[in-house]
Amino acid sequence: MAKLSMYNVTVPEFKRSLLVLRAILVKAEAFAEEKKITDGVLLGAYLAPDQFPLVKQVQIACDNAKGTSGRLAGVGLPKMEDNETTLKALEERIDKTVAFLDTLRDVQFEGSEERDIPIYFFPGKTLSGLEYVNTLGLANFYFHLTTTYLILRHNGMNIGKADFMGAVEFHDEKK
Amino acid sequence: MAKLSMYNVTVPEFKRSLLVLRAILVKAEAFAEEKKITDGVLLGAYLAPDQFPLVKQVQIACDNAKGTSGRLAGVGLPKMEDNETTLKALEERIDKTVAFLDTLRDVQFEGSEERDIPIYFFPGKTLSGLEYVNTLGLANFYFHLTTTYLILRHNGMNIGKADFMGAVEFHDEKK
Repeated sequence: MAKLSMYNVTVPEFKRSLLVLRAILVKAEAFAEEKKITDGVLLGAYLAPDQFPLVKQVQIACDNAKGTSGRLAGVGLPKMEDNETTLKALEERIDKTVAFLDTLRDVQFEGSEERDIPIYFFPGKTLSGLEYVNTLGLANFYFHLTTTYLILRHNGMNIGKADFMGAVEFHDEKK
Repeated sequence: MAKLSMYNVTVPEFKRSLLVLRAILVKAEAFAEEKKITDGVLLGAYLAPDQFPLVKQVQIACDNAKGTSGRLAGVGLPKMEDNETTLKALEERIDKTVAFLDTLRDVQFEGSEERDIPIYFFPGKTLSGLEYVNTLGLANFYFHLTTTYLILRHNGMNIGKADFMGAVEFHDEKK
């Protein structure tokens, strides 16, 4: 039974949900083939003309998972170029992000709930690790995951809530 | 400085994000007035024809916040009728949900990370409280919050990421 820790409220769920995102992109490959459209059409799709397109949504979701986890663990973040032009390349970015998450250990997160996390987009400002996870880390990650899903759904791809939820390992009720 | 607890990884952020959702709905009232459309048009809007419309997205976001928090705290859930027909009525549902969250106390959540939480839509199955928060509670809540935001954004409402992020109380970096 996993205990409550900063690691356990971030890394396992980022990883689980990144695999959800990956599975959706694999389905999108089949969708593109069926519709005879290039990956570029889907990577450039959006729900409002001044919104980031799908490719950026996936890149940011990966960066949220990487950045939140890495900053809490206090380790350097692997640099990733934002140069994906295919669904497969986005899947590889997810794989690289998951591989980074797999290098992190619970012990590195100990005490991070109270540690000041510098806010890279707001110089001079910080949040405690707990505030950071609550207000920025998880919210933004799920925002970009959901947006990716909805861009594809809006474009007619046959996915539903079960795809978003992904694999959840339920237990049998104790009698 | 808030400590890491099951309460602190759920209730404060549900509350903060419900107020984000509320502020977006208040902006939607002005948008409906400007566009001379009824609330019903926005409440019935969706991004895919087989997707729940906005009214249901808001109802479910409230229910996710209420249900996740209440089940972890081990208290009964206030029943809410799904009968809203205006943006104001949805704002009142959010207010009622926040009022419920305000009745909950950290001590009620102690040990809930290891407690079996029965899954109401999957009889006979459970998740530990921690698994429940990670895989269902927060993910679903943000899913419906993001979907509400994107339905409005897609319909031309002038909102952006700052509206989704809402109020975050940053601290000054220690010199």
